[in-house]
Amino acid sequence: MTGYSGNTKPTWVVDKERTKRAEAKETLWLFGIHAVRDALLNPNREKLRLVLTKNAADRLADALPHAGIEPEIVDPRKFQVPIAEDSVHQGAAMEVRPLNWGKLEDVCISGKGNALVVCLDRVTDPHNAGAVLRSAEVFGARAVIAPRHHSAPETGALAKTASGALERQPYLRVTNLSDAMTTLREMGYVLIGLDGEGSVTLGQAMADAGTRAVAIVMGAEGPGLREKTRETCDVIARIPFADAFGSLNVSNAAAIALYAASIR
Amino acid sequence: MTGYSGNTKPTWVVDKERTKRAEAKETLWLFGIHAVRDALLNPNREKLRLVLTKNAADRLADALPHAGIEPEIVDPRKFQVPIAEDSVHQGAAMEVRPLNWGKLEDVCISGKGNALVVCLDRVTDPHNAGAVLRSAEVFGARAVIAPRHHSAPETGALAKTASGALERQPYLRVTNLSDAMTTLREMGYVLIGLDGEGSVTLGQAMADAGTRAVAIVMGAEGPGLREKTRETCDVIARIPFADAFGSLNVSNAAAIALYAASIR
Repeated sequence: MTGYSGNTKPTWVVDKERTKRAEAKETLWLFGIHAVRDALLNPNREKLRLVLTKNAADRLADALPHAGIEPEIVDPRKFQVPIAEDSVHQGAAMEVRPLNWGKLEDVCISGKGNALVVCLDRVTDPHNAGAVLRSAEVFGARAVIAPRHHSAPETGALAKTASGALERQPYLRVTNLSDAMTTLREMGYVLIGLDGEGSVTLGQAMADAGTRAVAIVMGAEGPGLREKTRETCDVIARIPFADAFGSLNVSNAAAIALYAASIR
Repeated sequence: MTGYSGNTKPTWVVDKERTKRAEAKETLWLFGIHAVRDALLNPNREKLRLVLTKNAADRLADALPHAGIEPEIVDPRKFQVPIAEDSVHQGAAMEVRPLNWGKLEDVCISGKGNALVVCLDRVTDPHNAGAVLRSAEVFGARAVIAPRHHSAPETGALAKTASGALERQPYLRVTNLSDAMTTLREMGYVLIGLDGEGSVTLGQAMADAGTRAVAIVMGAEGPGLREKTRETCDVIARIPFADAFGSLNVSNAAAIALYAASIR
């Protein structure tokens, strides 16, 4: 605050308004036949622009009538949309808004699926986050939860790795991950963090959780769980490794943890 | 055979010689600081050309003295090596020969690690194969086995996804996968194929295998196991899914199966 102004608002109000305006503008380009078809078939997906080659339009003929958006048919040599140049778009791209999955409480208490969620602490790689969404859907998890900042945004690359799961698997972005974890605990979730130095094995942690709801909490490769995240967990579990070398890719570790939760 | 010739050899001899000549010529370019460092530090890796920027050479100063190859230092603007244009090479690339891991029998009977291998039936995506190598190393598997043709060749992209595991985890390419599986069975391995339609759960199949050596057999996403591969398995197991939608990425399924084998 540098002084008086005729139009003062507290900084937090200004910040909140700025965030809201930014969110309203936020759009992403999905690309590839599968990702575009899944989004066309999703009535909850707000669709802004659909750019197709004639050939792609033919391949999507089943999905187009119900999508409520008219495609712009373009020459394959003039396929110009703002996606990375090496993207395998197959002549199909659609600009959309991120999905609104609603409130943490609604999704995690009464949402469809099992009482099982995955929290991702600063997993910024879209391929990793996309692969986790895909596995989460396979094991019927209610949500994948990540902080709004410093995590993989919904992008075409994430959608492609998620192989359709982005349209169906709630991916909730929260302001503060440890606050969301505390809310999950209040709902009855056991918070199981994954770390190579965990005090119990993953299998033991899942057995101890019994029939309770489980939140699997994972950090990014390299930095792992942040201290605040780790402290908020109920237990830190390790995946028993047979070799000192290497460590698991985050999506592979998530798949193992989802499996361990499902077979308990 | 179209007639007499002064230099006749049976077709199979000609084929074998051709394959040998092709193999002798086969080289690959590794790229990125980590992949190049791991290869420099591997005495079994035959190194042909090393191209570095000054900056990359500084970062690799620890590994260079023991590598037995002189780097060609190039200007970053003139970094020209035959790798994909969008590769994140970090100013480091090295041409090498594929590693020779020796014979299936030696690696799978008396090799280091646990009596556990993964067979990949036509998994051609280098990122998937690389991720499987990485998980296989973590769980101390003796080998990842794939057919020589129709599988992911050793490439820079595979090496990068494998995150160093390519230098340490035996990746055996065999002429015929079902023959190799039969050899594994004769060694005492139980062959457990993975498929969504499996007759038993993965956990049950691993429990039934008891303390015996286990070969996990996986097909590519989409086509799955070929009929001959499936018939050669001792049992087909399914990963119990909680949801009808989607299916697991092949490297995630492999990680789960390696975990299930390790905790039995």
